[in-house]
This record gives sequence, C-alpha cells and structure tokens, in this order.
Amino acid sequence: MSARPETPLLDRVQKPEDMKQFSDAQLAKLAHELRLETISAVSETGGHLGAGLGVVELTVALHAVFDTPRDKLIWDVGHQCYPHKILTGRRDRIRTLRQAEGLSGFTKRSESVFDPFGAAHSSTSISAALGFAVARDLGGSCEGGLGDAIAVIGDGSISAGMAYEAMNNAGHLNRRLFVILNDNDMSIAPPVGAMSSYLSRLYAGEPFQELKAAAKGAVSLLPEPFREGAKRAKEMLKGMAVGGTLFEELGFSYLGPIDGHDMEQLLPVLRTVHDRATGPVLLHVVTKKGKGYAPAENARDKGHATARFDVQTGKQKKAPSNAPSYTSVFGQTLVDLAADDDKIVAVTAAMPDGTGLNLFAERYPSRCFDVAIAEQHGVTFSAALAAGGMKPFCAMYSTFLQRGYDQIVHDVAIQGLPVRFAIDRAGLVGADGATHAGSFDISYLSNLPGMVVMAAADEAELKHMIATAAAHDDGPIAFRYPRGEGVGVDMPERGQVLPIGKGRMIQEGKRVALLSFGTRLEEVRKAAEALAAKGITPSIADARFAKPLDRDMILSLAESHEALITIEEGAVGGFGSHVAQLLAEEGVFDHGLKYRSMVLPDVFIDHASPSAMYDHAGLNAKHIEEKVLNVLGVATLGSQRA
Amino acid sequence: MSARPETPLLDRVQKPEDMKQFSDAQLAKLAHELRLETISAVSETGGHLGAGLGVVELTVALHAVFDTPRDKLIWDVGHQCYPHKILTGRRDRIRTLRQAEGLSGFTKRSESVFDPFGAAHSSTSISAALGFAVARDLGGSCEGGLGDAIAVIGDGSISAGMAYEAMNNAGHLNRRLFVILNDNDMSIAPPVGAMSSYLSRLYAGEPFQELKAAAKGAVSLLPEPFREGAKRAKEMLKGMAVGGTLFEELGFSYLGPIDGHDMEQLLPVLRTVHDRATGPVLLHVVTKKGKGYAPAENARDKGHATARFDVQTGKQKKAPSNAPSYTSVFGQTLVDLAADDDKIVAVTAAMPDGTGLNLFAERYPSRCFDVAIAEQHGVTFSAALAAGGMKPFCAMYSTFLQRGYDQIVHDVAIQGLPVRFAIDRAGLVGADGATHAGSFDISYLSNLPGMVVMAAADEAELKHMIATAAAHDDGPIAFRYPRGEGVGVDMPERGQVLPIGKGRMIQEGKRVALLSFGTRLEEVRKAAEALAAKGITPSIADARFAKPLDRDMILSLAESHEALITIEEGAVGGFGSHVAQLLAEEGVFDHGLKYRSMVLPDVFIDHASPSAMYDHAGLNAKHIEEKVLNVLGVATLGSQRA
Repeated sequence: MSARPETPLLDRVQKPEDMKQFSDAQLAKLAHELRLETISAVSETGGHLGAGLGVVELTVALHAVFDTPRDKLIWDVGHQCYPHKILTGRRDRIRTLRQAEGLSGFTKRSESVFDPFGAAHSSTSISAALGFAVARDLGGSCEGGLGDAIAVIGDGSISAGMAYEAMNNAGHLNRRLFVILNDNDMSIAPPVGAMSSYLSRLYAGEPFQELKAAAKGAVSLLPEPFREGAKRAKEMLKGMAVGGTLFEELGFSYLGPIDGHDMEQLLPVLRTVHDRATGPVLLHVVTKKGKGYAPAENARDKGHATARFDVQTGKQKKAPSNAPSYTSVFGQTLVDLAADDDKIVAVTAAMPDGTGLNLFAERYPSRCFDVAIAEQHGVTFSAALAAGGMKPFCAMYSTFLQRGYDQIVHDVAIQGLPVRFAIDRAGLVGADGATHAGSFDISYLSNLPGMVVMAAADEAELKHMIATAAAHDDGPIAFRYPRGEGVGVDMPERGQVLPIGKGRMIQEGKRVALLSFGTRLEEVRKAAEALAAKGITPSIADARFAKPLDRDMILSLAESHEALITIEEGAVGGFGSHVAQLLAEEGVFDHGLKYRSMVLPDVFIDHASPSAMYDHAGLNAKHIEEKVLNVLGVATLGSQRA
Repeated sequence: MSARPETPLLDRVQKPEDMKQFSDAQLAKLAHELRLETISAVSETGGHLGAGLGVVELTVALHAVFDTPRDKLIWDVGHQCYPHKILTGRRDRIRTLRQAEGLSGFTKRSESVFDPFGAAHSSTSISAALGFAVARDLGGSCEGGLGDAIAVIGDGSISAGMAYEAMNNAGHLNRRLFVILNDNDMSIAPPVGAMSSYLSRLYAGEPFQELKAAAKGAVSLLPEPFREGAKRAKEMLKGMAVGGTLFEELGFSYLGPIDGHDMEQLLPVLRTVHDRATGPVLLHVVTKKGKGYAPAENARDKGHATARFDVQTGKQKKAPSNAPSYTSVFGQTLVDLAADDDKIVAVTAAMPDGTGLNLFAERYPSRCFDVAIAEQHGVTFSAALAAGGMKPFCAMYSTFLQRGYDQIVHDVAIQGLPVRFAIDRAGLVGADGATHAGSFDISYLSNLPGMVVMAAADEAELKHMIATAAAHDDGPIAFRYPRGEGVGVDMPERGQVLPIGKGRMIQEGKRVALLSFGTRLEEVRKAAEALAAKGITPSIADARFAKPLDRDMILSLAESHEALITIEEGAVGGFGSHVAQLLAEEGVFDHGLKYRSMVLPDVFIDHASPSAMYDHAGLNAKHIEEKVLNVLGVATLGSQRA
C-alpha cells in the first residue's frame, strides 16, 4: 500500500457545506487533494478510475456553487462519482468501494441523501433531473429538500436516444434545469456517431484561454456579470462564438465549451448560470478522462476500470487467469467463423472491448458496427441486416439488452428474423452489483414465440453455441454466458452445430435428477460429488436450451426419478417456469413429482464477489446439495405419512 | 355501401412498375384516384384513415421514382400504408383490412415483398433502412433484391430516442440512405416536445410556392438539374434558404420543406435526390393528415382511426356500447382521485386519448405530462417524480411499455420508487394484431423484485386497483386492463384500497379450482355455468395479484381440490409460472396435484376480433370447460391405472 497523500483541506470537508467558506484558490487546491485521494483509494480497491479523475474539478465546483443535497446533483452512469462520494460524507468508507458490505461503485439512493437518483446504466440523468425539477415546481418534497436539478452526462451517454427524449421534453417544458455535458471524447470506448463528431466540431481548434459562449441562447444568461466588469468575464466576451445550435434547437440555452479542469473558468460560469438561468441550460465542459494521473491518461481506455494498482507505477495487481474468459472465447470464435462466412457481421452498443468484439473489429472493420449507446437502434439495425441476408451477431450485456426489449419483440421475434443475440454478463456479475446483474433475460426472451434461447455451461459449450447460432437461419437465437473466466475445460478446435432443443446427459443416477441451464453446472457437479459421499448419485443433465425445451429428455427424467430440480442463473419466469409448464401440461404433476426450481431469489443482490452473490442467492453447490437432501428427506417423511 | 369511385388509371396498376410509363400529370391523377379508393375501402373496413390520406401523393411519387421492391421502402409505424398496399398488388384484398384472414393494418413482411420491414410501433424505420443499406453494401441479398433504402417517418415518430439513435449512426456511417420526414404536425395527438417546435419553425411563414432547399447540405445535391435549366428547378433555386441545421449536424443532407401534396414538387425533388445522393439525405415533406377528405381534415384527431363510415357524410357506424371502456374508467377515476390529492400526476407517451388521460389533461393540465413518443424517458421521468414526492401514474399500453423495460428495472424497481404503471391494452387487442398485443407484461414485470402486479377482472375492480395504486407508497405497482368495454358490472362510488397480495373467492365449489388473473374471469364464470350443467361446480377465485401472490389462498385451493387451473391473458412466465413456483417450493406437487396453467400460446396471433383471437389462443369459456373436463377425466383414468 502506498503512503496516503497529504490532504489538509480535504480533511476539513465532512460535507459539501464545509467548503462554502473556501476561497476559489482553496477550492482549486481542494480539487488537487481530491484527485490524490481518489487515486489512492482506487489503488486499494480497484474500480472505475479514469471517469472520476476527469471530473474532480467539476465535482468540487458543483458542490461549491450549488446547495447539495437540496439541489439534486445527478451523475449519469455514476461511475465517475468517487470524488463526489469523498466530498459527501463517505470518505471514511471510500476504501470499501465495490466490496461486499462496502460502498457501491455507482451512485445509490439508499447510500446517501447526496445521491438523489442512483445510476449505473447510462443516459438516465436528464430524465431524472427533469422529474425533480417538475416535482419541485408542483410542490413535491423529499429528503434533503427540493431545489435545483443538475444532470452531469458524458458525451458517450448523450448518444443514447433516452437522453434525446429527455432533452426534447425538457426543451418543451422549459423548467429551470441544468445539464452539464462532460465531454471527454471518450466513454468506455471512443464514442462514435454523428453526435460525437458534432461535439468535436464545437470546440475544434478553439483555444480554451478564450472562453466561448453561445452567441444566441446563452447571451441572455450572461450580460450582467460582464457589465460588472470582472476581468475574467471580459475575456469571456471576447471569445464568444456561435455554437451548440443543435441543443438550442431543442430549447436549451447552450454555454461553452469551457475547460473542465480550470477552476477559474468553472466557478464563474457555474455561478453565472446558477444566478441567471430560468429555463434549461446546457453547459458544455471539456475534460480529460484520467486527468492528472499519467498511467490513466496514457492508457488506451484512459483508465476506465482498473484492478488494484501501485500508485507510483500504475501497475495493476491482477491474479493470473487459469482459463479464457467467456468474453474472449466469444470474440475469438466469431473471428474464426467469420473467416469462412462473409455474411457474419457484428453489432455492439459502445462496448467493443467489453463484448470481445474488439478482436472482430480489428480483423473485419467493415463488418463490425459500433452503434454507440443505442441498444434500441442496435437491435432493429441487426434485424434489418438479417432481412438483408446478413448474419448479424448482436452482442450486448444481458442488463443492457433490456433497453432493446421492445425491438426484440417487435422487429426481431414477430418478424422471425435470424438475429443472433450474444448475451454477455448473464447472471450475477460481482462488483458492479444489482444494476449490472443479468437476471431477467431468460424470462424476457423465452416468453417470445419463435425465439431460441441457449445458455452455455462452460467455455467449450459457448463455442458450440456460437457455431449453432451462426448456422441457425430460420429465426432469432440467443445464447447467454457469464462474466469472467471459463472453468478450464479442453477447447474444441471448432464449435459444433448443436441440434436445436436438445439437451445432454452428464451423468446417469438415481432418485433425483439435476437439470442445469447455464454455468451452474459446475456447482451441480460439486453438489453431486458431495452427495455421492452420502450415498446419493443424482442424474445430471445440461438442458442447453430453455427454448425450445428438450421435451423428451425432461419428461424422461421426470418419469425415471422421484425428484427433478432445475437450476439456472436467472429470475423466476425463465427456464424452470417453462419446464414446470411442460410438466403441468403433460400431467406429470398429477400423480406426484418432487419438482423444485432453483432460481435467483426475489431481491436485488448488492455487489460482492460473484461467488458471494451466488451464496446470497442460494445457488452454490452447498445449496443444491441441501435442496436435494431436503427434497429427498421430505419425501421419506411424506411417504411415511401417506 | 357507397358506390365505388371511378379509377381508370388506378385500374391499370397491378404493381408499381405499371406506373413507370405514366406522365407526371397522370401520376397526379393517379394520386387522386388512389385517395378516393382509400376512402372507399376504409369506409367499409374502418381503420387508420388520416395518415394514409396524408401520404397519397408521397406514396405515388416514391413508387414512381424508386424501384420497389428492389428499393426498400419502409413506412414508419405502417398505419399510413393503405395507399401503398393498393399500389403493390393488394388492391383486391384492401377491403379485408384488419379483418380475420384479411390484410394487416400495418406493413408486414409475410404479406408482401413490397413490405421489406414490418412495423406498427413507431420510430423503427431509420434503423431498418440503415440495416438494409449496410447489407446492400456488404453484398447481402434478399427477396426482390437490395437497392436503395427509404424510410418514411412522421414528425411524431421522430421524437423517439430510437430515431435519433438511428440518425446518429446513419450520419456516422455515411451510406446512401433516404429519410423522408413526413411532417403533418400531428401524430395521433398533436406532437409535443422541442423537436416538434423546431420542425414548425423550419417552415413557419414560408410559402410553399417557392420551394426551399437547405443552403449548406443540400446544395451539393442540387446543382446539375438547375443548370439543366428546368423551369421548375429555377424556381427551386429562388426559394433556397438555410434550414435543417439540426439534421445536418447529425450528418444528413437536409432538403426541404416541400409541399407533400404537390406532385410538381415531390417528383422533381425525389428524382434529384435519387440521382445525386451519396450519403444520408433527409427530405422534409409537409403534409396534412386526412388530406382531401373533409370529415377527416376537420376531425380533432384528423381521422386517425375510424370505424366504418358513410363516405358522403363521414358519419361513423359504431355499435352502441353497453359498458364504459376500461380506458375511460381509468381516466375518470384518476381525475376523481386527483381532486383530493394534489400529488397525483400523470405521464403519457403521446397517447393522451388512447390512455384516457385526455380527461386528466383537461382538468389538471399542469399535472399531466405528454412526453412524446418517449417511453424510456417517460418511465425514468416518472421515477424521479416519485423520488420528488409526487404520485406519478405512468399510463402506457402494455406493448409500448416494452420500450421502457430497462428503465422499469433500473430506475424504478431497483430503487423501489412508487411509480404507478397503468397498463392499458393488456392481452390480445383485436384488429391491431400481434404487434399491439399486450402479451408479455405479466412475465416481464412479475420477475422484478419489489414490483406489485395486479390485473383487473372487470371495470369495478379496475377502479379499486387505481385507488390501491394511489395509496401504495412504498414501491412500484402496476395494474393491467384490456382494450375495450367492461362487462357492465355496477360501479362503486369510490374505489376501495385493496389489501396487497390478497385475492378474492368468487365461488366455492368442489374438485377443481379455477384461479383467474384478469378479465378472463368472465369466461371462467361462463365455463363454470356450462360445467354446472354437467354436475361439476368448480371453485372460482380472482387472484387480483400476480405479485405478491396470495399464498394462503392458493395453497388452500391446492389443498382442498384435486385440480387447480390458472387462467391469464399473458404468455408463459407470468402469473401461472409464479403460482407453479410457489406450489413447487411448498412441496404441493410432491404428492400430486392436477395443476394446469392456461396462458397465451407460443405463437404470435394475427389480427381478428379479440374474441376470435382468444378462440385461437384457447382461452375462451369453452376451452376452460374442456380443460376442466380433460383434467378431471384424465384424473379418473389415471387413478384407475394407479
């Protein structure tokens, strides 16, 4: 552990109000200390580093100028909130970030009144800020009071349709409202899309020494400070130029761009808009992701997310991995398949690295489409690619795919178009917590007519399922796989095309059949080993498909065992529910079957290690073992009673 | 039936290619005939009238200039496609619109190669067009060939984030692509939002006699025809003005606005862009919804959707209703509750009339928010209103709420915010068909921790559930109800607050218990009457809640009957699946229970009357009766065997 930095000013700040008597120079120094503290904390915990470092000055300036928690400060995505947490009474716990029982890596309502609206998925902040602004104007009330509403949103996040919908509504309602566009030309990956080019043009070649403001909309906000003759304000006037028309057309007053690391720009501009705004204002702030920490600034992803690291060298402390990650298996397998099939194309929503499609993009740049944070468009775009004879792999995290649900129903499933959904981060994901858990995709996909839904039990199975998806041309097909490393099985040279709707027997046993869907299979095996020591040899099957179900296998298992237990990494309504529906319709329950369905429990599970989260969920080997013992034990008692 | 119109030119058009040798004057005349035919057809079938009448000239011009079906013409929403259907080989079936076995009221891939991408939900067309354009450039192939891609999208639809996401991506990819903005200043309701104001400003006060084109982006498209000296083109030059900056910032060449009812503007402009475009082009066309038919033009909704009508008078032929619609019960009840509770606010996504919130908007304009076609924003905006101490009722159709699914998970459920979801059009909806069916909400909501999910069995129950939702302050709550009229029960003066998670017994019987969730209760009652004649008296219960379940009632029913059958208007994964999960976990299946779950079948059901669709689904009284007889009959055989 490196020595903690010296932070004399920061030590005086328990709450934002403690900064109120600081001079501007002290605030600038406070920002410096806050940066050091952020680096120090993340070096111990790992987590999102670059985004927080980019908004250190902005964080200080916003808390200095606005009156939090009465004013509602809403960080879009929320992964840039570590400096904010340090300033808002959570410094004593900042070194518990993303750990079990520790602080969340995102903003979270239950954690602090200074987090008025939690986040983790992108592009929700403007909608949230508008809701608070309207509630305020209608006499609503909440903890901390209801004052101004400020959304801080990145240039990557503003590419999402939701942000546009919110601006469209905000411009129409014309309430006092602040949107800070934190433009670091970098979300997780470099942002793509026309909006990103537009933002770049807004400040291309303009020196920040001369502060610019939009000529049309913003001028109404600014006159008085100029007339007051502050030296700084005069300089601002000189630099005024036309800009931000797009935002002005949507009804916002546009101001900027200004240098988000220069407190001498940030503070006076924020004070001006704070004092003058009557309607919605968009302040365009240019920042640098990873600012002030060379290893982050120089990293390809600008220090987006990091393991624990050495502060001096920036070197990350990662445990060596024993098996390839599911993500990399997906990326590499798709590259291999694409070599033989020029119809294979790939679609990602701003996550080329996270989905493993960076490999594909390097090898086949013209066949890989990063549509920006735009899952709705991404899904329908994929549907039309399929209608045009291509074989699109639409690769999204389970939790983000929720953004494209209507498009999956309306454009893919109803039309029966062969879009291949590669669903990463299925099940519980660990440090990113409940907001990133992939808990619902089995249920929200398996209820769609014509959809094929697979889950990989291990990395070799994933390879087979990718090949299966590539070959499946008569309708949509989805395959899900978790975050992290595989289990270390031998990898086949080529993936093999699986028969649709057929599971596989892993082990023939007696009395109880364990029917697994997904990577809990490993836990099922462990449970079976433990049970063997107790004289129970369960049958084990890997369902492979939640839809269509392997009716023959399932009915046969039900027929030949006194108990049948399904296990999946998903909420109720998914695989087990489809199995129960089959068993019910076939009359299997009529004469008794000890049927149980192990699913995620009906709670949102907080961040911890994935294994700890599954412990909480009751889906690890010991729980499976307990369930078997319990079911068979109850059975014994039951038959004695009968 | 009125006399059919005379249509000598239209009679010569079986396919768009038959128009290719028509002169411009003939094309204008063809448009006139097409309008008459459209009015005549809809007068017999009912359906969407105004939108189609607004694009008659555009339809003719697009088919005349482009080479369909090779060029992919994609109508956003698709309810304006009747003239298109008449021109593309479906005139002989146009009087079967929206009827069982007849033409769909929307575009549909399975219906015609001229419908390359079906629609019904809004704002998908640009994504689809971009997908076809990219597939073309990558060597894809499909029926009819792959040429140009043209999206026709209304000014209401372009308010959705998805359209913005698609433009953002299209501007970035810079493929040859056409977006026709059909600006009639009217979607179903008058469009709202800043984008709408922006579009209005683009043509405010400008006479259409002088055709305008954008100075910056479009000029590159236009020079040659001007130089060729066409008289019309000279006039175009005169009217050129700056406009459409917003679209140009997103990377489109903007052209317009032009008069969408003037073939002398439409044809030369379309020919010019067709011949010249290299990247994405947005052509802004101003039209009038209901154009050319006075009763539609003069209607408040511009003849959006109509019953069958008399062509001469415009008078609609509607059957008198016997009971209030669920929609109006919702609207009126919310108005009543709001009188006593100033925290109640309402949110709609461009459907004030469809959701019944028009009543609320009239009475409480400052508390009703039409956020435009923006379900994602609408849900999160509602979440923040709740966080700010208001009581938001977020009223959306089941099928459209799918657009806000991630926001329901991430912003509402995870944060436990008390948003009240009023879910209209639950279950099968009739003439609008599969795209509008509300089939999935029970499953996609009931799997969310902390969500309360109710379904009204009749209009009085709906009134109770609205009161229950208003009173429920410690988390999200949803209530669903179908399209159409109630069953005619006595209405209570005031809704009563129901105990959360408690069902109600309707009838005590023997052997079999029918557990209904939603308005199938009426069919259950009918089935019970038929069964009574056969000596079987089933117990009947109304679950009211899919979540939380009434455990005591359900376990008691299971205990005291040999068979338990659930009935719901939703897909597998919903109410019945949650019941099965409970029964399994409680060991009820261990010793046998004849359990069945009647859900929507695993197919997308085509448009027909709701009753016919439920017949197809197997969820009418006769099917429930059959199921009971079957289950009890099988039981008898089974116990003989045992």
